[in-house]
Amino acid sequence: MSYANPINNLIRAFSRLPTVGQRTAERFVFYLLKSGKKDVGELTLALKELMTSVKSCEVCWNFSDTSPCSICNNPKRDHKTICVVAEAQDLETIERTKEYDGTYHILRGTLKPDDEGISKMLKINELMNRVKKNQVDEVILALNPDLNGETTMMYLQKQLKTILPDLKVTRLARGLPMGSDLQYADEITLSSALKHRTN
Amino acid sequence: MSYANPINNLIRAFSRLPTVGQRTAERFVFYLLKSGKKDVGELTLALKELMTSVKSCEVCWNFSDTSPCSICNNPKRDHKTICVVAEAQDLETIERTKEYDGTYHILRGTLKPDDEGISKMLKINELMNRVKKNQVDEVILALNPDLNGETTMMYLQKQLKTILPDLKVTRLARGLPMGSDLQYADEITLSSALKHRTN
Repeated sequence: MSYANPINNLIRAFSRLPTVGQRTAERFVFYLLKSGKKDVGELTLALKELMTSVKSCEVCWNFSDTSPCSICNNPKRDHKTICVVAEAQDLETIERTKEYDGTYHILRGTLKPDDEGISKMLKINELMNRVKKNQVDEVILALNPDLNGETTMMYLQKQLKTILPDLKVTRLARGLPMGSDLQYADEITLSSALKHRTN
Repeated sequence: MSYANPINNLIRAFSRLPTVGQRTAERFVFYLLKSGKKDVGELTLALKELMTSVKSCEVCWNFSDTSPCSICNNPKRDHKTICVVAEAQDLETIERTKEYDGTYHILRGTLKPDDEGISKMLKINELMNRVKKNQVDEVILALNPDLNGETTMMYLQKQLKTILPDLKVTRLARGLPMGSDLQYADEITLSSALKHRTN
């Protein structure tokens, strides 16, 4: 004895989502069954809408309902500065600071030494072509400062310098985060914070 | 600046699911956007199927693609014994033991002192009518042994005894779970395990 087929199918579909296992998927399905047609209807409609109206911006590879997206289409933004991020969510995080008025390029991931498949899907060639074609002044590499992020940034920096030796390639500053404790700062962060101290 | 509307709508729909917050919902949506049409299509189809073909069994209130469900329709099961559980998932857990051949009644929740709305939706009247109409020998109350479960079981026991004073109403045994440590057992569990010791 097991659940009815339609229930099992939905459990399987939900458990493909990141962080969702069998148990959580079951909870989702029974929540929907108990909550009735309204919630399921809204979810179905939103999924359909996602598939029909969200596309990739062909300039920066952000997900948007227009291509080019609203940022690439905005004449008030600085199109000579490109900030490279790994995921579309990172763009959102940077926008929230209200400190940046350039454009973006979404890589759709980072280079992973053990996964050739993902590496091929990254929008690296698209970035190189974009930098070559347009008169870009600066590329800001804003990937996460972890192993994969650092590897990808080193690779990108090398590639960009090969194509355009005079291009300004920068990274986000390394330093102590707000509210942190000196005692727990690692040595790389702390020496970088010392070296680039401000007044 | 924020996400495109269709993305926001799906984030909102996902974040209604239990345990899902804004961040997790964003991860779901961007996972689907990156994985492409196949995963979204399967999820949409499974949701539609759920709505069209899953109904409530009108005998035991389990979710099933038939009404009565396969258990209530099975002549080999003991229809004179009803096991009352809170949720459909609990039925599945008991079925997995392969120790029970009676039927079930799914309450769809437990009594909550602070939430009148939920209490009204519980299938308590349906249980009473079912017990009255059919010649039931035993009702097993198999709700969780927590505050709400215990309250609900006490209430059900009283109601059942009022309707049918001779009905056998039982509960799951209380005792030490497999692999547990005597030192960490609470007093109620331990005294119950002592009192009902077996050989």
